[in-house]
Amino acid sequence: MGIKPVKTLTLSDIARLAGVSESTASRALRDNPVINAQTREKVQQIAAEHQFKVNATARSLRTQKSHTIAVIILFDAKTQQTITDPFLLEILGVIADELTRQGYDMLLSTSKTTDKDWRSYYFDSKRADGLIVIGQGEHDERVEQLSSAGVPFVVWGAPTGSEAFAVIGSDNRQGATLAVSHLLAQGCKRIAFLGDIRHTEIEMRYLGYQDALLAAGIKPEPLLQLNTDFTAQAGYVQTQQALFKQLGSLDGIFAASDAIAMGAMKALLEQGISVPQQVALVGFDDIAMSAYCTPSLTTVKQDTQAGGKLLVAQLLGQINGAKAASQLLPVKLIERQSSLRKE
Amino acid sequence: MGIKPVKTLTLSDIARLAGVSESTASRALRDNPVINAQTREKVQQIAAEHQFKVNATARSLRTQKSHTIAVIILFDAKTQQTITDPFLLEILGVIADELTRQGYDMLLSTSKTTDKDWRSYYFDSKRADGLIVIGQGEHDERVEQLSSAGVPFVVWGAPTGSEAFAVIGSDNRQGATLAVSHLLAQGCKRIAFLGDIRHTEIEMRYLGYQDALLAAGIKPEPLLQLNTDFTAQAGYVQTQQALFKQLGSLDGIFAASDAIAMGAMKALLEQGISVPQQVALVGFDDIAMSAYCTPSLTTVKQDTQAGGKLLVAQLLGQINGAKAASQLLPVKLIERQSSLRKE
Repeated sequence: MGIKPVKTLTLSDIARLAGVSESTASRALRDNPVINAQTREKVQQIAAEHQFKVNATARSLRTQKSHTIAVIILFDAKTQQTITDPFLLEILGVIADELTRQGYDMLLSTSKTTDKDWRSYYFDSKRADGLIVIGQGEHDERVEQLSSAGVPFVVWGAPTGSEAFAVIGSDNRQGATLAVSHLLAQGCKRIAFLGDIRHTEIEMRYLGYQDALLAAGIKPEPLLQLNTDFTAQAGYVQTQQALFKQLGSLDGIFAASDAIAMGAMKALLEQGISVPQQVALVGFDDIAMSAYCTPSLTTVKQDTQAGGKLLVAQLLGQINGAKAASQLLPVKLIERQSSLRKE
Repeated sequence: MGIKPVKTLTLSDIARLAGVSESTASRALRDNPVINAQTREKVQQIAAEHQFKVNATARSLRTQKSHTIAVIILFDAKTQQTITDPFLLEILGVIADELTRQGYDMLLSTSKTTDKDWRSYYFDSKRADGLIVIGQGEHDERVEQLSSAGVPFVVWGAPTGSEAFAVIGSDNRQGATLAVSHLLAQGCKRIAFLGDIRHTEIEMRYLGYQDALLAAGIKPEPLLQLNTDFTAQAGYVQTQQALFKQLGSLDGIFAASDAIAMGAMKALLEQGISVPQQVALVGFDDIAMSAYCTPSLTTVKQDTQAGGKLLVAQLLGQINGAKAASQLLPVKLIERQSSLRKE
């Protein structure tokens, strides 16, 4: 039986013409890499010849799936972190690439502007099949609500082991201990902490800082912890205005992000204070620019590649009925010029 | 006539209960700022009381609008620019905020992975009401196709006056002329250009570089233009490997992005070459970090705020039937330590 090329061809017709199942044809039309390249090419060519268009909205109604994941960047109203924070952008890029590879679209939102009721706005409305929330903030109540509403979602933040939902994040406490132990090994005796401990992730870094000091028999001084926003500007201003008062004896700084560390470095160098000889400096994140400042920046590397891929894998697992689990990702100290005093 | 709270309440019922039109109720439920805050609050409260949910997919079919804009980041397969390029991310952040403010969702895609036929994938399928394409690439054929297909779209790139669609972008040529004239005024005689002129925007910057040299009676040397990817690493490697061969007489560098400039600065300082005394350096973009490297970086500021808002305004205008026009945005030279030789 011959099939004539007509404009009203259905997906089932395309599948028959290509000699594949309807689900394979559907995936091939979405360019899903699960289907081999030759088959995708063939199906797409047949669809093009017959001017076949997939109506995404109609298909969503049929399958009750949007094939879209909402990614929400959760800003803390109290702090100045923006979408241009280099670390946020790096992990966002990994998530974007990974979602596309899995055949999902990515709907990007910032919490400044999103609806108060995420379940209703994203999930019940079928805008998204699941949510990735970046940044735990201060235990945002919208995150807590998702948890009790049975919506598939994962959080990038600070896994504590006690949360009721899946949180994936770096081992912030261990990373900070590595950083501060390294500063102590370089001969530092009095180390400041620049970071806003109202963020859970930063709080964990502060605990790691305290762990390292206590292990070396040094009592942490609360005055040396300064709440600092996630920007180079904040690091610069805090170092210039607050830390210089302590500089008689201060010989090390552990900054909770590389951007903060770069601002602190600027303030030190401007005052003629040598880095690392007079003040040694370690950041956190290992953003691309940290290798290119002068002196180059010692930092704790977060594995954004592994983190982004794990977030997507865990979320798609949940959508397919699996249970997601929190996971702590290992970190690594990258030693560069800003802290290395010895040959 | 009393209306009983039932679960099958329609939008029209909610509107009647709130005493507003259906379209106002719909906008209020989307938290559209066009509707005053008191009305939004009232409508949302009534909807919440009656457990009314907007089904976005069903609504899209009815209105034939997705209330979503696709933002496509067009990478050039030949170069290493990634979504972590600081300038890209800055303008992306502005667009995200502006779309949300206008009541639109943002669907983010990178051209590495998007379908070949954008009209079919985004527009005919009703995934998006319009497209914003960031980066003109090398006259991507998918952009040309959109143009002839009547799909609402705008491009961030290099307006030339001759394109068949609306391109919004900085006055790259004028910016480069400002940068190079400034280097000449600082006493530079032999200035290198680091940037990949296969990108239209960078080509315009190279033309501006030539304009400034010619105006000063200097003949541009083709050997001093080095194709360089948009990364600090590329700037570092090019400066270290290629420029050092010229350094006998080289006394200035104009880099086509701040990331490239920071890599170049690193290579110069590592070799003990003083910036700006021996080699003066100017970048392009004015990313946040450019004020915080040492020496701080002189650069040409692109107005990402104005650019992002204009892209959204022009696109929404097109969707509502207006004709979009190309527009060239003014740029500004920001003088910092990396080029200022005089007191």
